[in-house]
This record gives sequence, C-alpha cells and structure tokens, in this order.
Amino acid sequence: MPETTYITSRKNEWIKEISGLVRSAEKRHAQGLFVVEGARLCLDAARSQVPVLALLFTEQAEEKYRTYVQQIREKAQQICCISPSVAELISDTRSPQGIFCLCRMPTGEERNTPKMPDCPGKYLAVENMQDPANLGTVCRTAEALGIAGVILLGECCDFYSPKALRAGMGAAFRLPVFFSSSFAAAKPEWEKGGFVTFAAVPARDAQPVTHLSFPEKSIMVIGNEGNGLLTETIAGCEKRVTIPMLGRAESLNAAASASILMWEMMRTAVQEDENDG
Amino acid sequence: MPETTYITSRKNEWIKEISGLVRSAEKRHAQGLFVVEGARLCLDAARSQVPVLALLFTEQAEEKYRTYVQQIREKAQQICCISPSVAELISDTRSPQGIFCLCRMPTGEERNTPKMPDCPGKYLAVENMQDPANLGTVCRTAEALGIAGVILLGECCDFYSPKALRAGMGAAFRLPVFFSSSFAAAKPEWEKGGFVTFAAVPARDAQPVTHLSFPEKSIMVIGNEGNGLLTETIAGCEKRVTIPMLGRAESLNAAASASILMWEMMRTAVQEDENDG
Repeated sequence: MPETTYITSRKNEWIKEISGLVRSAEKRHAQGLFVVEGARLCLDAARSQVPVLALLFTEQAEEKYRTYVQQIREKAQQICCISPSVAELISDTRSPQGIFCLCRMPTGEERNTPKMPDCPGKYLAVENMQDPANLGTVCRTAEALGIAGVILLGECCDFYSPKALRAGMGAAFRLPVFFSSSFAAAKPEWEKGGFVTFAAVPARDAQPVTHLSFPEKSIMVIGNEGNGLLTETIAGCEKRVTIPMLGRAESLNAAASASILMWEMMRTAVQEDENDG
Repeated sequence: MPETTYITSRKNEWIKEISGLVRSAEKRHAQGLFVVEGARLCLDAARSQVPVLALLFTEQAEEKYRTYVQQIREKAQQICCISPSVAELISDTRSPQGIFCLCRMPTGEERNTPKMPDCPGKYLAVENMQDPANLGTVCRTAEALGIAGVILLGECCDFYSPKALRAGMGAAFRLPVFFSSSFAAAKPEWEKGGFVTFAAVPARDAQPVTHLSFPEKSIMVIGNEGNGLLTETIAGCEKRVTIPMLGRAESLNAAASASILMWEMMRTAVQEDENDG
C-alpha cells in the first residue's frame, strides 16, 4: 500500500488543481479526471472499475468513516491526509465530510460497456439535459429499474460534476454510459443494430405509453427540461410516445417523466420475471 | 388598488419579520404566514385561492417581470417596492429575482379541500418525509397525474418552506393537502370513509404493484427517505405493496418511487379515460 502523505497548505499546487477539477467541467474533460466527495460515494467508486488515483481525507473523517477509509485505501494509488481547511477548498458541499477520491474517467472497457449495437436492451437517451441533479437522479433510477444504459446526446450538463455524481448515488460508476454529439450522429449506429427509437413528447396525438410494447432493442429519447426534444430528433425517431395524464400535465418534471417512461419500458419484463420466479 | 409603499431599509421591522418567515418553519406556523419567491410562483399563488397579503418587488423585477407584476398586483392587499438589498434579505436563493408574495396559509375551505371521507379518489400519504425538495417534487407529480390529494403524516418537513414551494412549482397552492399527527390518528377516519390503505415497502414478499388494482378510494402510504415506513404503519395498512425491479433496487429514491407508485394507481383510470375518449 502506498505511504500516506500530508498536505495542510491551501496553496499546494496539486490541491489547487483538484479544486479546479471540482469547479470546472472544462478542466475535468481536458485532463480526463474528476473528484468524488463523501464516504459512501468514494466507496462506491473504489468498488467499481473506476481508477482511483488518490484518496484524500481529514483526520476527523478517518476516525468517523474508518471502515470506509480502510476499504477505499486498498484501491487508491495515492493516499493523502489533508487539513480541514484544505478539505473545504476541494469540497462542493457546505458541510464537507472531509473524504475525497481523485478519479480518472473510465474508458468504456473499464466500465464494462459493450458496443451498443451488439447488446440488446432497453436504453434511455437524454438530449441536452441541463440540470445535474436531474441527470444524476435519472441515472440512479435507470440503474434501479434495470435499464441497460444511458446515452447522453448533444450538450448535456457534465456527467462528472459533483452535483450529478451526488444525485446519482454511484450509478455513474456502474451504469453503462454512452456519449454522442447529437441524435443525428448516433442514429445510424442504432439503426444498424436494430434499435427502435421512441421520442418522449408532451403531445396529445402521440401514442400513450400504456398502449405501446417495447421491443428487446429500444431507446427512449427524452429532451431538455424546458424545451423538450429538438424537432429534428422527434422527426428522426420511429415512434412518438407520451404519458397520458388526468391532472395538470405541464407539472410533470423531467426526472419524474423519465422515471415513469423507464418504468413502462421495463414493466413487461418485470412481470415476466415474476411469473418465471 | 392599494397604493405602493417603498422600503429600502433592511432594519424595517416588517421586513425583518418577513425574513424570519423565510428562515423559520416555527415562525411560519405560529403566524400562519409564508413567503413565496419568484415571478412564476408568485403568479401561481395569486391565481389560486391562497390569500396574498402583500406583493413585494424591486424596480428591476417590475421591469423584467412586468406582466407578472401586473397580474399579481390585482390580488394583493398591499403593494411594496423594495430595494435590491432588502430583496436579498428576504430571499432564499443565490440570485433573487426580486419578487415576493407574503401569503396566509389557506384554510381547507379556501383550498377547496373536501372532507376526505366524503370524497373518493386516489390519495398519496407521506410519513415523516424529511427533504423539502422531495416533498415539493412529490406534490408536483401528484398534481400532474391527477392524484386527489396529498396527506402529510407525522413529522414531515415544512410544506410551506421556500425549497418545498420551489420544487412543487405551485402545486402547493392548488392541490388538496391534509395534515395529520400520525398514521394511527388518521386511520379511523379513513376506515370510516371506506378507504383502502397500501403501505409502500421495499420487500420481496410484498405484493408487486403490477399485480394490484386500486379501488376508487385508495391511499398509498410512503415513508421516510432513509428509514421507510414505521413498523406500526405497515402493520396498520390493509396491503403491502412493492415496486418489482430488475436492477439495483436500493438505488430508487423516494421521489422516483412515489412517481412510479402514483402512476400505477392512476394507470387504469388513465387507460379507461382514453378508451372513453
């Protein structure tokens, strides 16, 4: 196991770099690195295939989260004990737990992500999703329901932002994730693989999700929180699907719609699974 | 229409009281008052039956949200133009829009809330829900799906907190809401009304929600984010219901579970509605 080093200065260059990674998506993607904060989330990272370059913790955190720290240590390439004031500098929360992992963004292979067209399943694609808490929640729900993977299309918020990681509760480390610059760029490969695409729209003339059946290779495409899907994306999908509602439909938020749509995709499979058991 | 008064001092006693209402649930409930922030949400309040005691706005906000301010003015008993520094004092957000309503908590009658046992429908009850954003989201989803009302049991976070109001997007002003000190206290009245209660539990031996049908008088009871329902509440419900999942079930958060459970309660009604149309 690597030796523990000690950093107490907020002016330490490496600490400044880590703080930069916490604040800036650009820096994260330029370096392929991101920061995980909190005992539970750091352990989730350590237990996954995500490469943990360093574990940083305060003495207080080591005491409070001893079993966490012990387990994470074994996966970390570098161990660093930091002062509370350094912890504050690299934290994204108001009351930092004082435990962090510096991680490298995993390659598809490290994430056990198959080439999608070869891997049947029900996928969720999100287009231009802006709110990191929504993105995290959607990933978390996708993992719970057994969605095969999540695809980020266009200009989504950063998958590796502290807020998205926190809302995702570790789903980011385990769920197959794909990135594509746009629906148009991704579509040909999906078609080649035999995937059917469903555009989620709040339109009365779209097919109610309760009337649809989802083939083994399905992709549900949901849009931006305020504006929904791009017109060309809706046009490019095989089907338009909507959630029929008896109440005030405009009230359903992006994460709640995504939950219901993913649930409906998995509903038949869940029932078959129960009948088998 | 009342005349516009001007307040620029952060030491103004009334402003200090309003600021207290923003920060403290205790003060809100002692006085039966709460504060709504943001143009959209203030308009939602003004359009509802909620009594608007005062509208407060900065000059900048009046310019930027002119049509909102005009509509809200007509409902407000008092109009007050405030300085940006006063707006900061009574704001719960980092970048205040500079528009606020001081409101009185509506009575059940003002909210058009019927005595529950007389009013069939599918209700959601939440027990000891702690996170105001979750509570707001749940109310917002309930309204969208056409849930008849939301019941807060036990020690829930404050329904009128700025965070809950924000996440609820105005659902708090429109949705029938009931408060009860505990499940045990509420149960006799529900029974008298002929309601069937469903305890949402993450248990493999509970009935899968996909196998259940919900009678016209149903109450789904969901628990605290971390600990779920109280043992005595589960025991007191007629049925135990669970969401069958193919993935990592522990990953589903409270708001997502509530969305799926409410959706399943309304699913049959939605399909019947479509067949009628």
